[in-house]
This record gives sequence, structure tokens and C-alpha cells, in this order.
Amino acid sequence: MVDRSSLARRFHEMFRESANFGRKGKGVSRVAGSPEDGHVRDWFVQWLDANGFRVIVDPIGNIFGMLDFAGSAAAVVLTGSHLDSQPNGGRFDGAYGVIAAAQSALAIKSKVEAGLLAPRRNLCVVNWTNEEGARFQPSLLGSGVYAGRISLTDALSVTDGEGISVRQALQSIGYAGSGQAPRAEKYVELHIECGPELEQKGKTIGVTEKWWGAIKIQITVRGEQAHTGPTPMWRRKDALFGAGLLITGIRDMADSVNASDVERLYTSVGRIEVTPNSPNVVPSSATIFAELRSYESQVLEQAESRLRVLLEQVEKRTGLPVTIDDFSVREAGKFDPSLAGLAWDVAVANGYPALSVATIAGHDAIPLASVCESVLVVTPSVGGICHHEYEFTKDEDLEAGLFVLTDMLEKLCGGEGN
Amino acid sequence: MVDRSSLARRFHEMFRESANFGRKGKGVSRVAGSPEDGHVRDWFVQWLDANGFRVIVDPIGNIFGMLDFAGSAAAVVLTGSHLDSQPNGGRFDGAYGVIAAAQSALAIKSKVEAGLLAPRRNLCVVNWTNEEGARFQPSLLGSGVYAGRISLTDALSVTDGEGISVRQALQSIGYAGSGQAPRAEKYVELHIECGPELEQKGKTIGVTEKWWGAIKIQITVRGEQAHTGPTPMWRRKDALFGAGLLITGIRDMADSVNASDVERLYTSVGRIEVTPNSPNVVPSSATIFAELRSYESQVLEQAESRLRVLLEQVEKRTGLPVTIDDFSVREAGKFDPSLAGLAWDVAVANGYPALSVATIAGHDAIPLASVCESVLVVTPSVGGICHHEYEFTKDEDLEAGLFVLTDMLEKLCGGEGN
Repeated sequence: MVDRSSLARRFHEMFRESANFGRKGKGVSRVAGSPEDGHVRDWFVQWLDANGFRVIVDPIGNIFGMLDFAGSAAAVVLTGSHLDSQPNGGRFDGAYGVIAAAQSALAIKSKVEAGLLAPRRNLCVVNWTNEEGARFQPSLLGSGVYAGRISLTDALSVTDGEGISVRQALQSIGYAGSGQAPRAEKYVELHIECGPELEQKGKTIGVTEKWWGAIKIQITVRGEQAHTGPTPMWRRKDALFGAGLLITGIRDMADSVNASDVERLYTSVGRIEVTPNSPNVVPSSATIFAELRSYESQVLEQAESRLRVLLEQVEKRTGLPVTIDDFSVREAGKFDPSLAGLAWDVAVANGYPALSVATIAGHDAIPLASVCESVLVVTPSVGGICHHEYEFTKDEDLEAGLFVLTDMLEKLCGGEGN
Repeated sequence: MVDRSSLARRFHEMFRESANFGRKGKGVSRVAGSPEDGHVRDWFVQWLDANGFRVIVDPIGNIFGMLDFAGSAAAVVLTGSHLDSQPNGGRFDGAYGVIAAAQSALAIKSKVEAGLLAPRRNLCVVNWTNEEGARFQPSLLGSGVYAGRISLTDALSVTDGEGISVRQALQSIGYAGSGQAPRAEKYVELHIECGPELEQKGKTIGVTEKWWGAIKIQITVRGEQAHTGPTPMWRRKDALFGAGLLITGIRDMADSVNASDVERLYTSVGRIEVTPNSPNVVPSSATIFAELRSYESQVLEQAESRLRVLLEQVEKRTGLPVTIDDFSVREAGKFDPSLAGLAWDVAVANGYPALSVATIAGHDAIPLASVCESVLVVTPSVGGICHHEYEFTKDEDLEAGLFVLTDMLEKLCGGEGN
């Protein structure tokens, strides 16, 4: 076993430092491809370099730090998360998993170099590009390209609200790489829970066995720009009125399905874009970004059908065309059972109360699950708060996750698992 | 009478030129305080200078071009409109009234200089700052300061969505003036109708006898930023859901009051601002900009009461605070009957079919009516289209308005009226 007190000390020091990049209030604003994202990446790459990792930046900007323990023919254990954040996001979401991966890997490297561990697999840490999907949609972009869910060309061509492409944004911060991403056999991601379940049930380690399905959909109502004064009401083609009907209708879909004690469907509209968005002009277009989430594929399918009916109702009520601009489905699924089993065993062996959970949020571990064995381990979020500057995980819980990750990686590098 | 064919020619030439500033599609984008607004102002001031007008720029950036015909003790007839536009607005709204005023005044000046008219009043043309209220709210800002409806200090401190103040915007284009605005005895404004009534009834000149009342209100729903994934629905504090309820509820207010043939209440939400506006984040705040308009003060009062009930309903349904950030009332009112009578007589004398109308849109002539005799004359808008690049008024209708204005100004300068 590695020296836990020095591992914890190094982790806390590096994690504190990471929160300086893009600091905003108690949290951070490090939207993908922003100068702040560039600065934290530079710092992370310097750290990898200084500590003997072989740095690879691939064309979508994912950063890999390889430890070639076991020769170039050996399988690779990959671990990490993402350093980008939401606007005014928290300092734990993503960064925790990257910093913990880096320090776990460094501790294992020391043990290998001291002759205390004979590695049979190589170890690699990773920072995925644009996990959050705040500026560039879709989310999980870097891991999506890695897993072949989206083509590199399509991903680089995605533009933000100002028309700047991912390609341009990566070039501007110096992370449009040309390296070859290493092929992973196993992927372990550590993350904060971003929900209230572990805290409510008094558990420390969440072993994520499955993920919810999600439909992400972008809908545009097209109206006609007109004066809000003299234009008769019956002549108005008000795109924002249509969007208002969609926003309330999408919420009603969840409220009508969910019972007070069991919530089977989550729905949301987080973003809206209105043109020209002037107080005294009838809006000519309104685009909403909606999400439907459920673990039950049947519930999700029914929700999708209801959404299509809602679109027709809004078209009928407003007389305006309502179109789907973008539609993506993430099917519900299961993580690798043997990696989940390993996480459980290691948590129990460390004396941490563990819980089998499902993730409702998207994580890089989900696309990874389609190309290698993948698992997600989570630690408690105080009050379930996430995507908010007040997001918080206690030091002892951060350390529990760090130690579970380190033990897992050590066993996997040492040869455990098929 | 002035030479009508050369007056019309000069008008069309200058009007065409004005549409080059901020041209966008068939229309213009000349939002108040923008570089494009600065460029059209520079061009207008040069024209005034070159044609012997005495230019005054007051501290809110209103531009006056004085013709001191009758000595400094004589009363002033003021005429004009505004050169700012909506984003992607039309080229007629506002610019028509300024250019027609300038060319009418120039024609009268020639007549005075030729000894064909003995003026008893001075004549002044004006371009009011930020009539539109697209970037800076409230609208009618320059004329509002002139009429004492809003203090200069408050008006200069208003900020746009980026936090830039009117003071800074005026300074950046060089129109934070220090001149003393001339005190008007009479104000005549020529404008396009921005509505369908004249066209529908086959009339050429609308004599605006009264204006609708309007309530402009800014409402904020405050929620809490959270992840749209793992946050249970019952815990979400979704500000955009609250805004959606407001948008649909405000529309319902009009639909429930209006009969199919008579519309007594107009309502709208033209602008919304959402924070942080990211697809997978529950919005922490949403601000809407709503308007209620009616000619009947009782209908407007009832609408205001219903709006306040709606706010309470939304608070109750969402559990979120819903606050009124800004609330302004423009009471319905009447323009000066003798000026309206003069407009009518002149239209009839010219053989133009005239109609007595009410304006639902705000115009600079409304605040002016509280400090001097004021009237608004309008010409047909094809299809009633306004605040849109396709806004259009036929050449012969533009000329009809121009000739009516010129005749009115000539009579007023010559001594007609008290």
C-alpha cells in the first residue's frame, strides 16, 4: 500500500491549486476552450511533464499522461475526468477525478520505481475535452470522439453561440493536438455524486452500476418580427409565446408521470435563445434546449412520444412552425460488472460504507463503456448541490474516493482482472 | 408654396442615403449608442451644418438643428423623430420623420430667404436619442428627459445587457453634449403608421388624436443553479419554468379579454434574460420584459391587477420569489386638438384621404405632449409591417406625409395658431 497520509496531503495541495484557475466566488468558471481552460491545461501538462508522465494531446484536445510501466505491448488502465466546468460552476465537478487520478498514478509510479509493485499493465491519466457541454453542444465531446460516438470532423465543427468552432477554440488555447490517443482496456473514473443519495443514506462510496437514459433535444419556434405596439394580437407570430408553451409543457410531462415518492422521469429546459430579444419587438425565433431523462427505457419512449404531441399542440395553438433542430439519445446502460465488483470490494476492505447507485448525469465513463470496461465511482455531494459554486465534498470523503481509486488502479496494474 | 417636385427629390435622395448607415438586409440595425448610430448622427450633423442650421447637442445626446428666423425671443416650432432603430429593424421607422423634417425645414428656409414668407416663429428639427429602447430601457429616453419624465442622471445611468451605461455609449460615439435644448411651443412629428389601419381603410394620412396607455414591466424569477441530471425534480428551483408560466399567462390575459373583432388589450413578452443559460443547468434566474397596452384605462387597470395575481400564482406554483424589477406606466392621452385640426385641414386641402387614428406604439410626440402642443401624423405601412426589415411605405405616401408636414410647418412659422 502507498503512504496514505502523504498521498492525501499531495492531493489536497494540488486540488486547492486547481481551483485557482478561473476562480469565481467559491467555485470556478472554466468553460471548455476558454482562456481559463487553457491555463488549467497548461498547469496540468507541466505537472505531468515534471513528474515523468509521457504527455499526448489528441486532435480533439484530450490530454493523456502515460506511464509506460509494462512495455508498449501491455494493456492500458485509463483514469481521469475533466477540468472544464459550467459557467459559475463548482470546483469539484470533474477536477476531483483528474487530480485524484494524477496523484494516485504518481503514488503507484513511486511504488513501481521502488520495486514494490511489478506492473503488468500501463497506467494513463486523462483530461477529457468539453465534458460539460455548456459552451459547445453536445457534452461528453472529447470522450465521445474517443469512443467513436461522434466523428472528429463533426466535433471540431461544432460552434458556440458566437459562431466560434471547437477547432478554433482549441487552436486559440494551443490544444488542437496531433497525438494518437492510447487504447484503454479498462477505464476508472472518480467523480462527486452531484446528487443527494449517498448523503441521505449515510454512505461514503457510490459504486455506479448503471446510467439513466437521456434525450437531448433542441427545438425552434419560428415567428415573425413585428412591433409589440400597433401589431394586432391576431396577426402576431410570437415565437417566444410558443417557447413558453414548450417550457411549461415539458415540465408538465414530468409532473404528470412522477409520484411524490418515486420520480421516474426528469425533464428540463436549461437554455433559450431568442431573436431579436428586444422588449418591444415580437420575437421572430426562439430556440430551447430540453432534456428528458429516465432509467426506464419505456418511460423515456413514452416521454418522447408525448413531446412530439406537445410540439404539434404548440404548432396548432400558435400557428407557427415548431421544428426539431437537434435530437440525441443516450440509451440507459450498465457499467462493467467486474470493475464495479472490484470497486465494491476495495471500498469494503477500506471500511467505507458503500452503495450501489445509478448516475442520472452524463459522465465520460458512459461513452467509454462502449469501447472498454468502464466504471464510475462517486463520493457524497453535501446537500446534493452540483453545477453551482456551493458544490462541496468533505475532505474525508474526497480522501475515501482517492484511496479507493488508488487501490483499484494498483490492483489493475498489478494484474487483477482478466 | 415650396417647389414640391424638388422637395420630394431632395427628400428621397437624403432618405436613401440614410439607409446606408447600419444597413442590414432591406432594413437597418442602428441601435442607440452603437457605432452605426454614431455614423448616421455624424452624417446628419454635417448636413445640418452645411445647410445653415445651428446645431445643438444636449446632455442626453438629442440633436437639434435650429433656424433662428424670428429672433431669439420668438417661440419655437419643433419637428423630427429618431434615427435609432431596432436590431434588424426597418429603414422607415424614425428616419422618415427626421429626414422629412430636415427637408421641410430647408424648403421653408429657402422661402424665408427669398422673402416669400415672414416667419413669426423659429423652426427647429430634432433627432431624439434612444426612441426604440432596444438596447437601453426605457424607450423614448431622449424625449423623456426633454419632457422631464425621467431625470438626466437616471437616464445616463441606465445600462445595457453588457453593463455599458447610456453615458458611456454616448461618450463613445461623441454625443454626450453640453448644449441647452430649445424650449418648444409646438411639436409636429411625422412617422410611418407601423400598423395596418390606414392601408385597410384606403387612407393616406392618419391624424393621430390620441395614444394608448401602456404598462412596461420587468419581472424576475429567482431559482437556484443545479445539475439538470441528478437533481430530483422536487428539489429543483427552476427560474425558467417560472418565466414560461409568466409568458403563457401574459398571453392568456389578452386572449381572454379580446373578442375576435375587437381587441381591447395587447400583451407581449419580447425579451428574456436567463442565467446561466446552459443546456444542462437548472436556471438560477430568468427576467422577462413584458408590455400591456390598451386605450381604455379601465382595461389596463384590470390587466395590471390580473398580472399581479399571475405573479402570485407563479410564486405559489414554483415556490420561487417573483419580483417586479421595473414598472412604468404611460397613461392613455390626447394630442393637441388644434394641431390635429391643422393636420386634418392641410391633408384635406391637399386632397389626401385622412383618418383620425390612435397610436398604440410609443412615440416621442407622447412625452412632448406634456410640455408643449404636440401632434403625430402618420402614413401607411404596407401590410402593417414594422420593426422588421420588410417594413415599407410607398413613395407617394412618403411624399404625402412630407407635403402635409411642410404645409403645417409653414403655416405655424408664418403665425398660424395661438
